Amino acid sequence: MKLNGKHSRTLWLSGCGRAIEILDQSRLPHEIRVARLSSGVDVARAIANMSVRGAPLIGVAAAYGVALAMAEDSSDDGVASAAALLKATRPTAINLAARVDEVVARLKCVAEEDRAVAALAHAASIAEEEVSLSRAIGEHGAELIRAVHERKKARVNVLTHCNAGWLATVDWGTALAPVYVAHNRGIPVHVWVGETRPRNQGYLTAFELAEEGVPHTVIVDNAGGHLMQRGEVDLCLVGTDRTTSLGDVCNKIGTYLKALSAKDNGVPFYAAVPRSSIDWRLRNGLKEIPIEERSADEVHLVSGTSGDGAVAAVRVTPRASAASNHGFDVTPARLLTGLITERGVCAASPDGLLGLYPERR
Amino acid sequence: MKLNGKHSRTLWLSGCGRAIEILDQSRLPHEIRVARLSSGVDVARAIANMSVRGAPLIGVAAAYGVALAMAEDSSDDGVASAAALLKATRPTAINLAARVDEVVARLKCVAEEDRAVAALAHAASIAEEEVSLSRAIGEHGAELIRAVHERKKARVNVLTHCNAGWLATVDWGTALAPVYVAHNRGIPVHVWVGETRPRNQGYLTAFELAEEGVPHTVIVDNAGGHLMQRGEVDLCLVGTDRTTSLGDVCNKIGTYLKALSAKDNGVPFYAAVPRSSIDWRLRNGLKEIPIEERSADEVHLVSGTSGDGAVAAVRVTPRASAASNHGFDVTPARLLTGLITERGVCAASPDGLLGLYPERR
Repeated sequence: MKLNGKHSRTLWLSGCGRAIEILDQSRLPHEIRVARLSSGVDVARAIANMSVRGAPLIGVAAAYGVALAMAEDSSDDGVASAAALLKATRPTAINLAARVDEVVARLKCVAEEDRAVAALAHAASIAEEEVSLSRAIGEHGAELIRAVHERKKARVNVLTHCNAGWLATVDWGTALAPVYVAHNRGIPVHVWVGETRPRNQGYLTAFELAEEGVPHTVIVDNAGGHLMQRGEVDLCLVGTDRTTSLGDVCNKIGTYLKALSAKDNGVPFYAAVPRSSIDWRLRNGLKEIPIEERSADEVHLVSGTSGDGAVAAVRVTPRASAASNHGFDVTPARLLTGLITERGVCAASPDGLLGLYPERR
Repeated sequence: MKLNGKHSRTLWLSGCGRAIEILDQSRLPHEIRVARLSSGVDVARAIANMSVRGAPLIGVAAAYGVALAMAEDSSDDGVASAAALLKATRPTAINLAARVDEVVARLKCVAEEDRAVAALAHAASIAEEEVSLSRAIGEHGAELIRAVHERKKARVNVLTHCNAGWLATVDWGTALAPVYVAHNRGIPVHVWVGETRPRNQGYLTAFELAEEGVPHTVIVDNAGGHLMQRGEVDLCLVGTDRTTSLGDVCNKIGTYLKALSAKDNGVPFYAAVPRSSIDWRLRNGLKEIPIEERSADEVHLVSGTSGDGAVAAVRVTPRASAASNHGFDVTPARLLTGLITERGVCAASPDGLLGLYPERR
């Protein structure tokens, strides 16, 4: 990923391992600010308020959160309470709970005095693993873009929803990784970026595409269907917060509507699925995945920049009106053309997934 | 309709017929302000910037616009140029062009010196006709709500998109008229109000539902599908800007996505169709209806109230990102359960429409 033309990441160690620093995504795209998180509590707060967000990235951040908590209390109780605190921040993305469990399992056989360092090392390895998962998804997905370009002999129009780019991961992204790989290889690609109310993570997508020099156009969430009806979308690429063993994909609210439209218009619709987002225990996404319900204020208040460039929030809804705010929806496997994993592209089905992950049979 | 508890309309004559006054919808729901329009040019500007909006209402306003223009130049050239000016403001809703044509036809056989009065009288009759169309739609549509209530024995959850309430008409509304009639008859009804980016006409819907005391909840446009998947929507009611003779419905962008979701979840989806919105000449809505493209600033800028209650706009998108802004999409007849017209409910098909309008055979 590039930020102001320089290679960067979304999260890095700081203070000789006594803290992590993150790009504060609650201020982006209006303000580029780095936040320093020095404890498990800091990390939990940053995840809950979405200063750090994106299913892969909150998994990594939570792993570091356990490590930072070990510096304060590395007893078994300390491990358990740090894990509980971090896992309670956001319920939908499986990455978070799975990565915390992974660090906790690692610490079981480590002496208390060594736990802080061991957890830090393990969190770092998780971060590196996520980068390589992203990079591999980029390679496999770029082939889909290349195939469209070869057939069409013109710019490939990709539609995405929410942000599943490098801001949602440590680097590269999931749904956007194929776009970056294709762009870097000179394949002309343009991205329709749905703004993704209420938190408008689409603006994060637009921001990072602009930083990478990828042509893109912001659209309202309502517009995706119309563009597909008009033949202006070649390919849909989205992320996932949790994928079931049947291939159902739970992603940012509104993904399901775009998938319905893609199906209705014969537009291929893929989810980018790193193995860290697969919940092998679950089958029916609609019935089994917990859907986060967030504060109604995320609907009522919209942030942007005022005339003087300062970040400001306005209340958009009428004072007398209530709002509801579910964060995710489930796209049933039947609406997906396929899943792009780090091992290749497969059908969104048990056979498709088990073909790539035979060890799960 | 009620405003601050008093019966009101969205548009009325003023200055002994030398002007009209409107509720300025570009300020709502944040500020209730009346705007006075004294000329055809004033009316054209108010329609273009959406100070007055909604397919039925802009038809009425444009008819008054021709009348006000006659006070300045009632020659044949004056009639033609006023008509051209008003018809050029917005391309999608057929009501606008049809109502202007209606007034122009009426003026053909009227002496120049009598045209201002004749046009005013005809505009007034159009306004009254729209009120009775709305009222009749309310009666027929309320039966659909009543039927759900009788079956369900619990609150009926209606989902709507954009604003097709009294603010979009002279009084009562189209899609919301059934809700008001049902509510007035004591049937418990609750409305899911999609905010309808980019212009957020859903907040107008929330505002008018609040004024009428109808329970409602604002949701982001992305959330409609999820609510239907969860069984929390009993009925979808939307308006239309143009309906073809095959039953295709062109309405605010995003309507198509909700209709796809309704179909996928077995939720009845109706458009409220006053005869003034039917374009009998057209068949295939996707191919034949011109879709308005509006300024990208409507995507970039969001209006609301700041901390001190003043109306303020913030820029939400990154500075380096372009945006596109199509105002409408087409919902093919196959996705509609039916059309609610002033003559009753019919299938969204040629037979359905011709059954209610046999004079069009």
